[in-house]
Amino acid sequence: MNIAIDIGNTRVKSAVFEEDKLVELYVFDKENIISEIKKILEKNIISKGVISNVASVSDKMMEELKAIVNLQVVSASSKVPFINLYKTPKTLGVDRIALVAGAVFEYPQKNVLIIDAGTCITFDFVNKKSEYLGGAISPGIKMRFAALNHFTANLPLLEKEEVVSFIGGNTNESMNSGVVNGVIQEIEGVINQYKKKYIDLTVVLTGGDTNFLSKQLKSSIFANQNFVLQGLNRILIFNIDK
Amino acid sequence: MNIAIDIGNTRVKSAVFEEDKLVELYVFDKENIISEIKKILEKNIISKGVISNVASVSDKMMEELKAIVNLQVVSASSKVPFINLYKTPKTLGVDRIALVAGAVFEYPQKNVLIIDAGTCITFDFVNKKSEYLGGAISPGIKMRFAALNHFTANLPLLEKEEVVSFIGGNTNESMNSGVVNGVIQEIEGVINQYKKKYIDLTVVLTGGDTNFLSKQLKSSIFANQNFVLQGLNRILIFNIDK
Repeated sequence: MNIAIDIGNTRVKSAVFEEDKLVELYVFDKENIISEIKKILEKNIISKGVISNVASVSDKMMEELKAIVNLQVVSASSKVPFINLYKTPKTLGVDRIALVAGAVFEYPQKNVLIIDAGTCITFDFVNKKSEYLGGAISPGIKMRFAALNHFTANLPLLEKEEVVSFIGGNTNESMNSGVVNGVIQEIEGVINQYKKKYIDLTVVLTGGDTNFLSKQLKSSIFANQNFVLQGLNRILIFNIDK
Repeated sequence: MNIAIDIGNTRVKSAVFEEDKLVELYVFDKENIISEIKKILEKNIISKGVISNVASVSDKMMEELKAIVNLQVVSASSKVPFINLYKTPKTLGVDRIALVAGAVFEYPQKNVLIIDAGTCITFDFVNKKSEYLGGAISPGIKMRFAALNHFTANLPLLEKEEVVSFIGGNTNESMNSGVVNGVIQEIEGVINQYKKKYIDLTVVLTGGDTNFLSKQLKSSIFANQNFVLQGLNRILIFNIDK
């Protein structure tokens, strides 16, 4: 079996795969990564692993991890199953590389927009010729609430709620409408921009806010919270097969 | 002549009015408010003033200002020319009160959505019966760039640029698309939500990003960078007439 590890800005997500089937999912804090991975390795017979590290986990910790499991570290120079037309491929986040790898395997010969709604909301587009063109990075829901509080004198720190009316009738409702309804309008608007340019668009929604957002979106999307992990596993398999 | 002073989160905007006509406009830093207002008073014959203070300018400084000019301080309990249906009127920002006052004077008996694109982007709606219903507060363009840098490990601090393609081909283009195109999609989406609910909607765009955004918006809007100041002056005139 394989292990995929995705170190994000706030947490680590990890999954055990039997070939391309996700068998078990784990989520834990970045600080506990070594002990948590050790626990997973004790419970499962793992032959190979793959890791994506967008946040600043130290080289030392990465060496420790490599000492306990045979790990492929995904980087901008990893072999990937798509044509990378990003103008600065070295600065392309490894989580975004994994998402695109996942998309070309799950939806081959399709125009696919992958929306990852986590700390940031990333938009990534790969066309039916498996060419990755790029996308967008905007602040995530939690980050928008944090910013409204951090960068102003008077606004409180709120947590997301489903929007009842887009016309907020008090400060909390106004902020929630501004952030949550704002994100929904932004996502719908961007999806429509792609749809106008690319017929037969497939849209995948992933990331921590997947379930919260998918209920409120009108556009038809495939919701899949584990798309980065599946993409990482695909990159691992792709490199083994080579 | 009257003076209107709008103390925002980052800067102070002030204008001299001859009745309802804006004669001269001034923009300066919050720290220099006393000396700058003194300069304006030396150059113009001012009988009355009106001030809105959303940012945390101290009571002491407000007293200093009141000592040099006859000032009406707009607050949640000021007399206003509209019916305030906000559920928590005491927490309604005074800049938003000024915007709504401006809207009912400029566009009487109309459904008006006022979008103020500054530090925050506020949406405020007043219907044709002059009833203020509320709106939304979301992070402004500069705040979104600051948040992407501040709350992540790897993203740089960027300044806004016009969006050439919504498919960003490198990190900077992706962030600019995410922020600037994101804000545009959000604003267009919200305008359309209001349009579906209220026929004959008038949309006013104001705030520091007015010119930058109005060029890129497809919806038809009235761009007016000084709408808060005009609204403040309207509140002053409304209270003198009473």
